[in-house]
Amino acid sequence: MLLLTPGPVQTHPSVRAAMAEDIAPWDAAFRPFYTRLRERIRVIAGGVEGEHVTLPLQGAGHMILEAAIRTYVAPDGALLIPMNGEYAVRMARLAREAGREVVELHAPDTRGITPGEVAAALAAHPECGHLGMVQSETGSGIVNDPAAIGAVVRAAGRRMILDAVSAFGALPLDLSAQPELDAVVFTSNKCLEGLPGFAFAVARLDRTEQCAGNARSWSLDLADVLANSRENGMGSLRFTGPVQTLRALDVALDRFDAEGGRAVRLARYRANAIALHRGLVALGLKPYLTEAEQGPIVVTVHQPAGLVLADFVAALKRQGVTISSYFTTEAPSFRIGAIGDIGLPEVAVVLRAVEAALAELGLSQAA
Amino acid sequence: MLLLTPGPVQTHPSVRAAMAEDIAPWDAAFRPFYTRLRERIRVIAGGVEGEHVTLPLQGAGHMILEAAIRTYVAPDGALLIPMNGEYAVRMARLAREAGREVVELHAPDTRGITPGEVAAALAAHPECGHLGMVQSETGSGIVNDPAAIGAVVRAAGRRMILDAVSAFGALPLDLSAQPELDAVVFTSNKCLEGLPGFAFAVARLDRTEQCAGNARSWSLDLADVLANSRENGMGSLRFTGPVQTLRALDVALDRFDAEGGRAVRLARYRANAIALHRGLVALGLKPYLTEAEQGPIVVTVHQPAGLVLADFVAALKRQGVTISSYFTTEAPSFRIGAIGDIGLPEVAVVLRAVEAALAELGLSQAA
Repeated sequence: MLLLTPGPVQTHPSVRAAMAEDIAPWDAAFRPFYTRLRERIRVIAGGVEGEHVTLPLQGAGHMILEAAIRTYVAPDGALLIPMNGEYAVRMARLAREAGREVVELHAPDTRGITPGEVAAALAAHPECGHLGMVQSETGSGIVNDPAAIGAVVRAAGRRMILDAVSAFGALPLDLSAQPELDAVVFTSNKCLEGLPGFAFAVARLDRTEQCAGNARSWSLDLADVLANSRENGMGSLRFTGPVQTLRALDVALDRFDAEGGRAVRLARYRANAIALHRGLVALGLKPYLTEAEQGPIVVTVHQPAGLVLADFVAALKRQGVTISSYFTTEAPSFRIGAIGDIGLPEVAVVLRAVEAALAELGLSQAA
Repeated sequence: MLLLTPGPVQTHPSVRAAMAEDIAPWDAAFRPFYTRLRERIRVIAGGVEGEHVTLPLQGAGHMILEAAIRTYVAPDGALLIPMNGEYAVRMARLAREAGREVVELHAPDTRGITPGEVAAALAAHPECGHLGMVQSETGSGIVNDPAAIGAVVRAAGRRMILDAVSAFGALPLDLSAQPELDAVVFTSNKCLEGLPGFAFAVARLDRTEQCAGNARSWSLDLADVLANSRENGMGSLRFTGPVQTLRALDVALDRFDAEGGRAVRLARYRANAIALHRGLVALGLKPYLTEAEQGPIVVTVHQPAGLVLADFVAALKRQGVTISSYFTTEAPSFRIGAIGDIGLPEVAVVLRAVEAALAELGLSQAA
């Protein structure tokens, strides 16, 4: 069975095997392991020693994103969010329920936001001290560019929170070149090819300390995660968590290093995505994005006439391929992940499975 | 290696083995599994169909406790908390940081709170609409009785939130007999003998719906967890989570059923705790609690003169036993868990390990 939802992703058997262990999170042996894992993650983010720190949180990507908003945006602060996908909608909801003001910068869900659009919106909204942006939208597959957008945020004297949940470990990011970034947030189970259970922020030390008292939630206070690390050491967890997923992530990072790191992983995903995009076109399907806007994480195509998504997902599953059972694009679509422990041979399997599923449902003609 | 921290606990190999699987949380096959698991948990809590519901949350016990406080205590509400252990201190912090008023009912950490004390405090503090109580304090080992205390809360026309993190699945609880209980919260990795990653509330349906809008945190809003179940079905997760731990919990619940359920499990833990208590006394150590106040979850003893906790924990580990590396009692102590997939043979191993560790450190005389 191939898992292409995309995320949780298909993992390597050695990564999964690391889950089957009883672990004492406050044991002396766990502390150096956990300290080292946090350092490995900081380095992947381009974080600078003494300037950035990895702040882990038990739970989902939504939780670490809410934690970052609560921590870095003051309780009476406002956040500008480029709205070009489902995860931007979710970021806006997380911020509003936490009491922060949200200004929405609307854009189509078929392309990345442009620096010019963001510059104009920041100029029109001086109340927005922060930009909140999603790097990769897994609904459509588009990518927003944190370096280009960050330059505009920096020039405007504002700050930024980046949701890189489905991007981190593959798409480019270099915190050392982006001092306007308070924090980037992501999880263990997307492009890092680990299992779900932990979320992470890599954040500026100075900003995190300055923002103590903002969160109004002990559970979701990243300043307190840092304070705990200061008091009890970088090897200390605040609360009990699924530390099995940290062991699995460490194995996954060994594989990340062995593969050659972020750029090589991105190239593999990009090759997967292009092969999927072209292969689906060859089957008569209509991609949701142009090849120019097609990101390397997920490939989305319009649903052909007559397709019932649940039936199609079930038919694909009979072919050994699991894809997402819902869509979040403006127009009805289905999507296939290009990430995880997969390459071109698996993409070929997927394309044959799509062809067979469409045939089984009598939709080869429609597509 | 025996894991007696207590919690995460020693699990059965079949429970751990269930972790090593890639799972699509929104897959059609996952939905009936997840629905059934929620029902199994409701039944263990004594919850009534149509009246109570299991509300899962990715993350730690602290998070589900904050979520319950945010959901059931109005933003301008107040909470009375019996303060007889470290987890009561944590509950008070969670509530205060969430903006709720806390009234502390102080009591020694060597005995359970009494109904008379709670009744008097509720009478003196009409502003407290809720009592928040910890059922089992893993710092000391004492137990607070939710049935006896709940009767007082009910009589006073107040409501109650119960932190049963280290109690649920072993200590008695029957939601059907306690309509004053808005929610009981706990995790998968204590007396249920699963792995960490998910926390649960079993809560009143009516109260959860009435409390929509209280939480001011999307991530930690149990009313929204219920709303999502209403909208997308009981088989739907709100956010990506460590679903591997749900599979492991299901295997653990099979073992719970096979053992004979809660009362039989409690009897096993109680036998473990008494054997530990008496065995440690026989080694010359001084228990933190009388045998009458000694709960079945963890056995705590005073540190003998000259003991350095880190050295003792390391010496025990060389004997194959992992215990907690810190204490939270008022007086210095160490503690050994009586819970998890262990019985009297393992307790005997632990007692021999303690004896050997004390001898290695030259403390047999001191103890």
